[in-house]
Amino acid sequence: MQILVLNSGSSSIKFQLFKMPEAKVICSGIVERIGLDNARISYKTNKEKIEKIAPIQNHKEGLELIAKYLMDSDLGVIQSASEIHVAGHRVVHGGSTFAETVEITGEVKQKIEKLSALAPLHNPANLEGILVAEEIFPTAKQVAVFDTAFHQTIPIEAYKYAIPNRFLDENNIRLYGFHGTSHKYVSEKAIKYLGKDSTKIITIHLGNGCSMTAVKDGQSIDHTLGFAPMNGLIMGTRSGDIDPAIIFYMVNSLGYSINEVNTLLQKESGMLGLTGYSDLRDIESEAEKGDENCRLALKMNAYRIKKFVGAYAAILNGLDAIVFTAGIGENSDTIRSLVCKDLDFLGIDIDQEKNEIRSKEERDISSPSSKVKVLVIPTNEELEIATQSFKLLSK
Amino acid sequence: MQILVLNSGSSSIKFQLFKMPEAKVICSGIVERIGLDNARISYKTNKEKIEKIAPIQNHKEGLELIAKYLMDSDLGVIQSASEIHVAGHRVVHGGSTFAETVEITGEVKQKIEKLSALAPLHNPANLEGILVAEEIFPTAKQVAVFDTAFHQTIPIEAYKYAIPNRFLDENNIRLYGFHGTSHKYVSEKAIKYLGKDSTKIITIHLGNGCSMTAVKDGQSIDHTLGFAPMNGLIMGTRSGDIDPAIIFYMVNSLGYSINEVNTLLQKESGMLGLTGYSDLRDIESEAEKGDENCRLALKMNAYRIKKFVGAYAAILNGLDAIVFTAGIGENSDTIRSLVCKDLDFLGIDIDQEKNEIRSKEERDISSPSSKVKVLVIPTNEELEIATQSFKLLSK
Repeated sequence: MQILVLNSGSSSIKFQLFKMPEAKVICSGIVERIGLDNARISYKTNKEKIEKIAPIQNHKEGLELIAKYLMDSDLGVIQSASEIHVAGHRVVHGGSTFAETVEITGEVKQKIEKLSALAPLHNPANLEGILVAEEIFPTAKQVAVFDTAFHQTIPIEAYKYAIPNRFLDENNIRLYGFHGTSHKYVSEKAIKYLGKDSTKIITIHLGNGCSMTAVKDGQSIDHTLGFAPMNGLIMGTRSGDIDPAIIFYMVNSLGYSINEVNTLLQKESGMLGLTGYSDLRDIESEAEKGDENCRLALKMNAYRIKKFVGAYAAILNGLDAIVFTAGIGENSDTIRSLVCKDLDFLGIDIDQEKNEIRSKEERDISSPSSKVKVLVIPTNEELEIATQSFKLLSK
Repeated sequence: MQILVLNSGSSSIKFQLFKMPEAKVICSGIVERIGLDNARISYKTNKEKIEKIAPIQNHKEGLELIAKYLMDSDLGVIQSASEIHVAGHRVVHGGSTFAETVEITGEVKQKIEKLSALAPLHNPANLEGILVAEEIFPTAKQVAVFDTAFHQTIPIEAYKYAIPNRFLDENNIRLYGFHGTSHKYVSEKAIKYLGKDSTKIITIHLGNGCSMTAVKDGQSIDHTLGFAPMNGLIMGTRSGDIDPAIIFYMVNSLGYSINEVNTLLQKESGMLGLTGYSDLRDIESEAEKGDENCRLALKMNAYRIKKFVGAYAAILNGLDAIVFTAGIGENSDTIRSLVCKDLDFLGIDIDQEKNEIRSKEERDISSPSSKVKVLVIPTNEELEIATQSFKLLSK
């Protein structure tokens, strides 16, 4: 079975073609900067890697380009679109409607669209990816894997907000949690590494979006993102937690409209708002050159993570491992070092030399005396989506 | 020097008359339910205690009634208003304008009024108390003691929000912290109890407003309330932390106005929104009778506190004591027990028998084996205000 996994963001489509159940990657790549004239496609098979700048107006043009490469006489890995048996889509927000991976029907699409109000940056792009994939791969089965599904085990004292009960009962306002595919994937790897039955793990997913999960015996029991993917940790352009009073103050005293504040907190805040840069590599390099805003932003970012490590260690009442994953988590030894500094009270101590080794492999960077294992585990949401899609359709 | 300490809330005035520097309480009491026909004054000297129900329309009538009792031929403790040398006022929000206790001038009043936008539930009432006290005690010096002052030692990585820098630089949007007078008072008592130089303490103030402070060597280094007193812990009618996305969703998808949402989160949420009761004694008694909403609300309340205990233990990188204080913290063994349950990983273990003893005294309720001391220390914001007022005017 050939499964094409699609992860459509607001201006990008990541793709990977798997042969299942072997979990063999046939090709992979990404279309980036959709909507811009200097959009880019990168496409990689086990023989070749191509990168090309080209204007790509929208998701449809992006996926058409991907299909063109897949079927290209030189670079291609399939002869016709019908060789894609399944398109497995990442969908960010499943609300309380989707607790599991599902095959996509008209009703499913309607529900995903309806849930866009909860994840306005993500669900519309995910849905766009589904609609375009249906056109381009008309014979493929379409599957949706939701970022929220892994967090359905979070207990009510953690997912309910302290607002009148009707908002949960009638409007489904609660903590849903996100990046579930990634937290599930890396926590399972960590459990395997620990090799014991009962485990207490904190997974720290630091990409452009950032979140942490408290994982007890393989189940998510709390998580930093809530109703929508904007709170908790400091992210690339999102503020994470702020005092809600600030929103009312910006509207009532500073004259912003509610939608301007929303945009401000989602697209102009976080590391971008603090430094002028949203890419952590730029921020680290400027901090090294002495930029005080960049130094402070790194400190604030790590400080917030550290607080959640403590909070989750408390509710887990113990800690076997913390796991860093995703772009920043896997690659930034600076952030990992700032987070783990002065946490010996919780039993966390990293080996700085191990921390500085750059690698794409799963690794243990704790010092020999650290009671808590500090792990770096590359996430693989695409493989997890392929695995779940395969399982669903093999039932 | 006779100092009348006034703590004016939205519908109450608490008062205590001190002889300083002896810190002797001459009389004390409270006017409650101002604005209602069944308002109540209670007045207590070292000889008598009076309670009376009477209609009290506003703060002026309330303070006039207090003055009447102070000068009453039978119950009185002074002959004329001029025997009050100082009126020491609690003021909630000092912004970044007031880092210390000040004598009140016209300019100070203007600034307190200006800061009302940051604490709309509190500063207007505090100012009203000042204006009325100036009328009724025209010869007294007026002093303002700010709830925010103790938290001025919080470092920038903890007080800054991850929003564009201009909001801190130009609009002073940052974490200020509140209940500082209480956190300062009880943390100093705890330090004395621990009897050592370097201390790591978490103070937990649970009244109608609730907050926690991480106190390192006597200085506040982080705090759960932020820009205004509405976030962090679950309070009587305030939600505490919620995902900001919920605010945008309520406005954009549920049709609430921004001010309706503000009122909802400040006055109809918290324990009231979850249970229908805002008084914890009612909630505990209903929970015992089997009310599921009340049981869950207590669990949620304690769960949130527990997470901050962990977070602050992490940033303190150690923990010598946690301190419960204020109405709920001093009196609810249920909440204390729920908070401390399953925290042995952090070294916290309470003695249930000691926990259940009701007392107005400072006490240690930890088990002999608990590495962290669990203390119950009655707060005394009035004495702290009198002490600070006396110090200021004796300079």
